[in-house]
Amino acid sequence: MKAAIFRGGDIVVDTLPVPVPGQNQALVKVLCCGICGSDLHAAKHARRMVEVTRRIPGRIPMELDKDVVFGHEFCGEILDYGPDTEHRLRIGARVVAMPIMPTGDIRFTIGYSNDYPGGYGERMGLAAPPMLEVPHGLSAAHASLTEPLAVGIHAVEKAALQKGDAPVVVGCGPVGLAAIVGLRLKGFHPIIAADFSPKRRELALRMGADIAVDPAKEAPYGKLAPGHRAVIFECVGVPGMLQQIFEAAPRDARIVVAGVCMEPDRIEPFFGIVKELSLQFVLGYTPEEFAWCLRLLAEGQVDAEALVTGKVGLEGVKDAFAELGNPEHHTKILVEPWR
Amino acid sequence: MKAAIFRGGDIVVDTLPVPVPGQNQALVKVLCCGICGSDLHAAKHARRMVEVTRRIPGRIPMELDKDVVFGHEFCGEILDYGPDTEHRLRIGARVVAMPIMPTGDIRFTIGYSNDYPGGYGERMGLAAPPMLEVPHGLSAAHASLTEPLAVGIHAVEKAALQKGDAPVVVGCGPVGLAAIVGLRLKGFHPIIAADFSPKRRELALRMGADIAVDPAKEAPYGKLAPGHRAVIFECVGVPGMLQQIFEAAPRDARIVVAGVCMEPDRIEPFFGIVKELSLQFVLGYTPEEFAWCLRLLAEGQVDAEALVTGKVGLEGVKDAFAELGNPEHHTKILVEPWR
Repeated sequence: MKAAIFRGGDIVVDTLPVPVPGQNQALVKVLCCGICGSDLHAAKHARRMVEVTRRIPGRIPMELDKDVVFGHEFCGEILDYGPDTEHRLRIGARVVAMPIMPTGDIRFTIGYSNDYPGGYGERMGLAAPPMLEVPHGLSAAHASLTEPLAVGIHAVEKAALQKGDAPVVVGCGPVGLAAIVGLRLKGFHPIIAADFSPKRRELALRMGADIAVDPAKEAPYGKLAPGHRAVIFECVGVPGMLQQIFEAAPRDARIVVAGVCMEPDRIEPFFGIVKELSLQFVLGYTPEEFAWCLRLLAEGQVDAEALVTGKVGLEGVKDAFAELGNPEHHTKILVEPWR
Repeated sequence: MKAAIFRGGDIVVDTLPVPVPGQNQALVKVLCCGICGSDLHAAKHARRMVEVTRRIPGRIPMELDKDVVFGHEFCGEILDYGPDTEHRLRIGARVVAMPIMPTGDIRFTIGYSNDYPGGYGERMGLAAPPMLEVPHGLSAAHASLTEPLAVGIHAVEKAALQKGDAPVVVGCGPVGLAAIVGLRLKGFHPIIAADFSPKRRELALRMGADIAVDPAKEAPYGKLAPGHRAVIFECVGVPGMLQQIFEAAPRDARIVVAGVCMEPDRIEPFFGIVKELSLQFVLGYTPEEFAWCLRLLAEGQVDAEALVTGKVGLEGVKDAFAELGNPEHHTKILVEPWR
């Protein structure tokens, strides 16, 4: 099969063996796979990611001298099942799934493993039991947004918002926009969104934000109604963001850290102390949240079309990685390996 | 009056004018005042504290080219009231109070202000309305522990513990010991305490810890019963502690940051993200918590005698600052300016 492979620090298109599904696994044809900011991070900070992952018990890092196929926001079509595996969904069914491959004691992450290639290839293996069938009428492109939507929805769930809380979303890339959707669905208004990019501020309003602020011109926290606890969603994930929020946040603010900062960061705890700030780091989502996001997309509760700003074949993955740096052009680029 | 003054980076004993109480203020004779770790920090990192405080809206830093009298853990005897002030408590009453002086828009902290000297002097001015009378039978020495006890009690309140949570107290200085008291009173067991010092581990057990661990020999988190959320009280407050906890903490742990780290700190957010850790920075206490701590001491619910390891006059303050670095000798040294 053809795949866009992370090899030697670069993205190259080459041929790899088609995965052979084991017991309780399925082989799928990849219809569509979104490019995630985490993939850009992983490509840029690969050695750092491996080094940190090695220090976390129960995690097996990628080996960088071997091939890796990224891509964990996929929608596929079932081609076959492994041996002794229940055919719960029919061959030909379109599916999405959490990018997790349980094997004995270790849960591998599909798309960040040498053994379990992700969706930037023509075929991939999936764990069969957690696969969810994509409802009729929902395109593969929109179904592939289930995963990034779930990341934002999970952040909102972990925020444990209380009546009267005032949400602020800092950074309106895919995660920030998904958090805005989650806040809108929970009825927390006004939703204040902040991004330097006019295009992303426009998208934020389209997804349900009530106020979109350019942080170059005004502090988003100045828009907060007094007497409400600020709940700040950090959806940027670069060094320095936390300290910037520490300095600008009002007293008692709760900071939900959804941005994935791979590098070491510098904070001045005294600001957190004096304001009694709280932080909640978040990652991923639960199976229930993932399934709920598929339903939200199927029911048309999310303006999926607005989020998809480009589609490429495997040959276009490398350029897409470069282009995603420009927030005026792109939000989500989808890879269609069959192109 | 005589006072131990923070002047030019040093502690010197000299004479200062007796404070003149204004409206709604009282003049008290200081009976006793505890030396707080924050005072040691403030002396060591005075410039840094001033610089950071200047960057926090609504706070007025000390001016270091003027005198400061530290000391915010005081018990005093009312000598007089300012003009047009209700004599709510009789002259001669022994009182404790939160070290706060409200003046118009600004709340000064007594003991960290050029204008409102703290308890390392013979006399001090207090805001009259919040003064609490010390019950009969409670010594001034033990009453002066109200403030540091309240810091730990507040940390436990902000931890928002839930049934089944497993507390770990890292650092058994006065704040950690007070947190242990708070956990014991709330009935959260087993309480795991960690400190390098044998003396402090012994005190931790005396205050109510069930297990005291030497982190040089074993990780306190290894003692946690599986299936319970760890709630880790960081009561050390030096750079590097947060990252150490990030690396060692179990998944989903809640970290209550009660240590006051004045310096910038380095964290690797990826550990927080992967484990979905949460942090709650805490500072101070509420008036209700402060009053409750005075009652706890009066009722003998805290082994106050075990916490007091030394008493000095004003001439002994400078040496006491140096000696408090040794956890085998001292927990709380009290200053008695009348000595």
